[in-house]
Amino acid sequence: MTDRIREFLRRRTEDGPCVVVDLDVVRDNYEAFARALPDTSVFYAVKANPAPEILSALTELGSSFDCASVGEIEMVLAAGASADRISYGNTIKKERDIARAFELGVRLYAVDCEAEVEKIARAAPGVKVFCRILCDGAGAEWPLSRKFGCAPEMAPDVLEAAHRAGLEAFGVSFHVGSQQANLAAWDGALATAAGVFQECATRGISLKMVNMGGGFPARYLKDVPGVPAYGQAIFQALTDHFGNDLPQTIIEPGRGMVGDAGLIEAEVVLISKKSADDTVRWVYLDIGKFHGLAETMDEAIRYPIRTPRDGDVTAPCVLAGPTCDSVDVLYEKTPYELPVSLSIGDKVLIESCGAYTTTYSTVGFNGFKALASYVI
Amino acid sequence: MTDRIREFLRRRTEDGPCVVVDLDVVRDNYEAFARALPDTSVFYAVKANPAPEILSALTELGSSFDCASVGEIEMVLAAGASADRISYGNTIKKERDIARAFELGVRLYAVDCEAEVEKIARAAPGVKVFCRILCDGAGAEWPLSRKFGCAPEMAPDVLEAAHRAGLEAFGVSFHVGSQQANLAAWDGALATAAGVFQECATRGISLKMVNMGGGFPARYLKDVPGVPAYGQAIFQALTDHFGNDLPQTIIEPGRGMVGDAGLIEAEVVLISKKSADDTVRWVYLDIGKFHGLAETMDEAIRYPIRTPRDGDVTAPCVLAGPTCDSVDVLYEKTPYELPVSLSIGDKVLIESCGAYTTTYSTVGFNGFKALASYVI
Repeated sequence: MTDRIREFLRRRTEDGPCVVVDLDVVRDNYEAFARALPDTSVFYAVKANPAPEILSALTELGSSFDCASVGEIEMVLAAGASADRISYGNTIKKERDIARAFELGVRLYAVDCEAEVEKIARAAPGVKVFCRILCDGAGAEWPLSRKFGCAPEMAPDVLEAAHRAGLEAFGVSFHVGSQQANLAAWDGALATAAGVFQECATRGISLKMVNMGGGFPARYLKDVPGVPAYGQAIFQALTDHFGNDLPQTIIEPGRGMVGDAGLIEAEVVLISKKSADDTVRWVYLDIGKFHGLAETMDEAIRYPIRTPRDGDVTAPCVLAGPTCDSVDVLYEKTPYELPVSLSIGDKVLIESCGAYTTTYSTVGFNGFKALASYVI
Repeated sequence: MTDRIREFLRRRTEDGPCVVVDLDVVRDNYEAFARALPDTSVFYAVKANPAPEILSALTELGSSFDCASVGEIEMVLAAGASADRISYGNTIKKERDIARAFELGVRLYAVDCEAEVEKIARAAPGVKVFCRILCDGAGAEWPLSRKFGCAPEMAPDVLEAAHRAGLEAFGVSFHVGSQQANLAAWDGALATAAGVFQECATRGISLKMVNMGGGFPARYLKDVPGVPAYGQAIFQALTDHFGNDLPQTIIEPGRGMVGDAGLIEAEVVLISKKSADDTVRWVYLDIGKFHGLAETMDEAIRYPIRTPRDGDVTAPCVLAGPTCDSVDVLYEKTPYELPVSLSIGDKVLIESCGAYTTTYSTVGFNGFKALASYVI
């Protein structure tokens, strides 16, 4: 909670839940990444929060951008960044979307198989491609599925196919998993990436870039290492595996850039018990899984929650959203401690909500509006 | 797939995935419910698909409506239904939303605790309330959580509180769980409801209505009983537990009304393998969990999928969506059989997508537009 957000909420007159993002925090986070890895380019993962104000602020600071779609590419261009600061980082692209991105000036593309290489060779001749490799993700809050990337042994084949198709086989990318708290995760992935570089070199292809992806955590209830610690661990791993011949490097922070820059203000709609002898209260908020808090799925993220009754005696409660949908429950397996004095109508602040909230909101499930968003 | 939908898709020129709902099927489904339970009022669960065309068609047929919010109430009124055909069925309501619904003429409200009764007594004096009771949901594809309803033993207290607060203690509601294939589920719930009627009678409160909720299935890959079988089982259970003194009854079909009336047309974006010796292909569509297919979460619903290569030899594949999000995978634990000849660019038809698709779509995650919807 920053003073600017506090002041904004004090003056806000509109009704209903909202997220407020403080651009000063985003700027501080960008500077922290830039300082921690001074020789690495920062490509902000737009999907985390594509608010125009965030894209403009990062453009001014010199950030580049990781885009998942033509829609995101257009947003970044609209924010004033030039196309040479954009990576089309989705390994799954329609050929006509590749053509459109090429037309817009984008020259850097992700691939993880030969079929995607073929599309790019046809629709975006001569561009740079990097091949995403699978990574085991140990230590991440969400070890990613196998959806993106190919086995490292296949990557040289994919890159060689790109080379033969007239594309520039530019490098390798990986993602260590979201909310990655294990600093050693990058070490294993960089060792594998170095192996792909070597195999490509024996085939006469000189790779130049390693895209080290995202995974940098936001601070929720559990403590996480700071950005400088990540920088140090990554730089050490780079020198361990690439020696003096360091490649160009990219990181793609999304959650780590905007997560702790925003919070959601919500309202307690109802507090009840299911039977006279129930030991746990149910607390219902005016926001839930379908309007911003999708990442509570499987109770993965435990958001810090502030209430106007903090300091009073607490007791566990089940926390749920307002929709007529029984999966719209935030915390039940591990109930959440909240003040027993909490009352219907109280406003609560859900912290670290700057990433993956507005864009995960549904268009209006149950007739409740999509999450209102303010960037200040 | 109806001829009308086939013809519509043949003429459609816009790009991107879409859902198309055939109103004739919705009308047939309404008539099937009305025939199967001629003495029961049908309250369409608006949250399943609030498309204005659907609300208008059901208004014309004489349907009533189960609304989750003031937003949905306003949509139903805009479709031409009068307020006396609306139930504010959400047990979680802000007092100012209750006041707004009252102002709009709504006179029937759900409750499951005394705190909600107090709000309604203040904001909507004199209206009818029904108390939702917990139900075990055995046999449902999704046995609902304990989010809605109170223990049946508590219901008479809640209804008595309503009576004392000057409201009309009108009845009881339950929900046997979504996609309920067990016809006996209603029997147990109606037995419990009859018990609440008796206990209230001993307290001098004469309840008049049982709201039997939804749970009526749509036809996905697994076969389910037809509407007439449900009607018969429910009528039998009603007479078993209420004898000759049958209460007024309500059902709230959502999925059962519109689920099989619509389908999604999508496109194959990429087909790949993760390594040279991978036995399972990955097939990526231009629609996934975040743009309409949220109900594949935990691989709960297995949608029937038609391809232009049906009839060719099939092999299992992992099916995934187009976003840069590793949870955007539709079927992986139980791979989906699709023709081996399926190719990038092929259009596929995902059937029984009329319910819980458009409204579960995000506002535009990853820069992909919200699901396009056509009601014909």
